[in-house]
Amino acid sequence: MTSSMQALWLEDKILSYRPEVPINPPNPGEALIRMRIAGICATDLEMVKGYYPFTGIPGHEFVGEVVQAPGYPTWIGQRVVGEINIACHQCENCRAGMPTHCQQRRVLGIKDQHGAFAEYLLLPIENLHPVPASVPDEIAVFTEPLAAALEIQEQVHIHPGEQVLVIGAGRLGQLIAQSLVLTGCDLWVLVRHEAQRQQLNRPGIHCLSEDELKRQRWDLVVEATGSSSGFQLARQAVRPRGTIILKSTYKGELQTSFSSLVVEEIQLIGSRCGPFPPALRLLESGHVDPSILIAEKYSLAEGKVAFEQAARPGMLKVLLAP
Amino acid sequence: MTSSMQALWLEDKILSYRPEVPINPPNPGEALIRMRIAGICATDLEMVKGYYPFTGIPGHEFVGEVVQAPGYPTWIGQRVVGEINIACHQCENCRAGMPTHCQQRRVLGIKDQHGAFAEYLLLPIENLHPVPASVPDEIAVFTEPLAAALEIQEQVHIHPGEQVLVIGAGRLGQLIAQSLVLTGCDLWVLVRHEAQRQQLNRPGIHCLSEDELKRQRWDLVVEATGSSSGFQLARQAVRPRGTIILKSTYKGELQTSFSSLVVEEIQLIGSRCGPFPPALRLLESGHVDPSILIAEKYSLAEGKVAFEQAARPGMLKVLLAP
Repeated sequence: MTSSMQALWLEDKILSYRPEVPINPPNPGEALIRMRIAGICATDLEMVKGYYPFTGIPGHEFVGEVVQAPGYPTWIGQRVVGEINIACHQCENCRAGMPTHCQQRRVLGIKDQHGAFAEYLLLPIENLHPVPASVPDEIAVFTEPLAAALEIQEQVHIHPGEQVLVIGAGRLGQLIAQSLVLTGCDLWVLVRHEAQRQQLNRPGIHCLSEDELKRQRWDLVVEATGSSSGFQLARQAVRPRGTIILKSTYKGELQTSFSSLVVEEIQLIGSRCGPFPPALRLLESGHVDPSILIAEKYSLAEGKVAFEQAARPGMLKVLLAP
Repeated sequence: MTSSMQALWLEDKILSYRPEVPINPPNPGEALIRMRIAGICATDLEMVKGYYPFTGIPGHEFVGEVVQAPGYPTWIGQRVVGEINIACHQCENCRAGMPTHCQQRRVLGIKDQHGAFAEYLLLPIENLHPVPASVPDEIAVFTEPLAAALEIQEQVHIHPGEQVLVIGAGRLGQLIAQSLVLTGCDLWVLVRHEAQRQQLNRPGIHCLSEDELKRQRWDLVVEATGSSSGFQLARQAVRPRGTIILKSTYKGELQTSFSSLVVEEIQLIGSRCGPFPPALRLLESGHVDPSILIAEKYSLAEGKVAFEQAARPGMLKVLLAP
C-alpha cells in the first residue's frame, strides 16, 4: 500500500482535487477503509457555501472495504458502511445514551475528521456495519441518508391512520417518502418538477403540487426542501396539534408567529442522524429501493464537476468512486 | 332581575367601564351565569395592546352562579367554572376530538363571545363544571389557568427522573411550577424578582437566577415569560433532544437558527387550553394552592385601575368582583 492517496479537499469554501494526500494509519480501535463508492448530499453542498467552517476532506456517505483494523482481524476485507458521529463515551450526552449528540463529537467529513471523498478513510470499528452480500455498492451508499429518514420514526409514532405530507422531493425527501409509506399512512409528497412525479411513481405514494395544497389538513408534515420557503409551506399545511419534522440543515433563521404556534398547539421537531441497522434491513429486503435516485458517477479527479452537477435543481444522487 | 348590567368594554384597544350593558337571554343549551369573581390574565393584557381584534366584554377566568338554564333546571343555583372554547361539534377538528381547536369556535371574552368582566355572562351548559363546596371562589378562579398549566402534561410525558426548568415566575409560571413538581421531577424556576423566590417557597421547587442558568442541560423547558427574551433563554437551556414548551401568547415572531434545531434535534411544542376536571381535583385536594398568587380585588367600576395594576411587572393575580 502506498503512503498517499487522491482526495477532495475543502478549505475556505473552496473545493479542490489533491492527488497526493498522506494516508494516516489507524489508531487503536479504528479501521482504515478503502472507499468503494461515496455519495454527495445536501450537507456537503451547504458546507461548500460555508454552512460549517470545515477544513479537510469532506464526504460522509460511503461504502468501503476494511483494509487495516489493528487487533480486530475479522473485520479485514469486510464491505462496510459507517455511522458518521464519533463519540467520546464520557460526556453527559454519551452517558445519557445519546452518542450522536456527544459534546466532544467528531463527525466524518463534517467536523474534526477527514471524510470519505478520498481513496481511504478512518473510522472507529464501533461505527461500522457490514453490508449484506446481496446489496450492491450503489444501493448500500444510501444507508446513511435512509437512516436519517428513519430517525423520524425513532422520534415520533406514525399512526397508520394519519395523513402525512413530505415537502421536498429531492434525494432525502424521496427516501423519507419511501420509508414513511411503509407505515400504511396516507402519504403525499409535494413536488415541483415533473420528473419528481415519475421518480415517486411507487405504490401508495401520491403527489401534489403547491397549488393543490390544502391548509391546516396534515397530521404530520416533513420539511425536507433545504430552503426556508419549505417551512412556510409546512406551517400552512399542518393541522392544529399537528407535527412538523425539520429535516433540512441550511444556514438561516426559522421565523414564524410565536402565538400561532401556541394557539394551534403545533409541534416542531428537529431530526438528524438515524439508525443504520433498520436502514440496511430495508435496503436488503427491497422495501426501500433507491436505485431510481442514482444520477451519475464521477472519479475523485472529477470531483469539482461532480459537486456542480449535484447542486443543480432537481438533481438526484451524484456518486464518487476512486 | 334587571335587563342591564355593569361591564367592562374593550373597543379599539380602549378599555372602559359601562354601567348599563343589555343582558342577553340564554339560547337553548346555554346558561346565564351571575359572575361572582373573575381574574385578569396576561392574554387580557395582550388584547388591550391589540394582540387580537376583539370588541366587547373581555374576561375568561371566572367563578359564577347559574341563574337561568332553560331545560336544565338542576343547574340553577350551582356554583361553576367554565371552559372558554365554544365548539360547533360539526367541523373536522371537532369530529377529530379536538373541540378546543374547533374551526368555528367562539372563545369567551376573546373571540365572538362576551366575557366574564360583567355582572352576567353566557356559556353553553356543556362548558360548565360545578365547583366543589370546599373550594372558595378566590381559589376556584384559578381553575382555567391551572388547566392551561396541566395541558403540558396532556401533551408530553414528564418522567420523574427529568430535570425541568420553568422560565417565568409570573401568575401562569407559578401554577405550572406547582403542577409540575407533583410529577417528582427535579424542578427549577428561573426568577427575576426576589419576591418570586418567596412565592415559590414550596417543597421541591428550586429557584435560580439568569446568571446561574446552565446551558444545554434541561430535559424540558417551559417558556412562560410572555416575552421573546424567554424563548432565547429556553433555547440556550434545553439539552440536545430536549423539549421546549411554548406557553406565552404575545404578538411577535419566534426567530431561531433553523439548522441548530435540526442538529440538536430539539422539540418545540405550543401549548394552550387544558382540562378542567384535574385542575378542580388538584385545587380541592390542595396539592396546588394558588392562594399566595392573589394580589388585589377590585369592583367592575374600578376595572381600568385593576388592569393597570395587573400590568405592573411582577404583579400577581388581580381579581374583579361585581
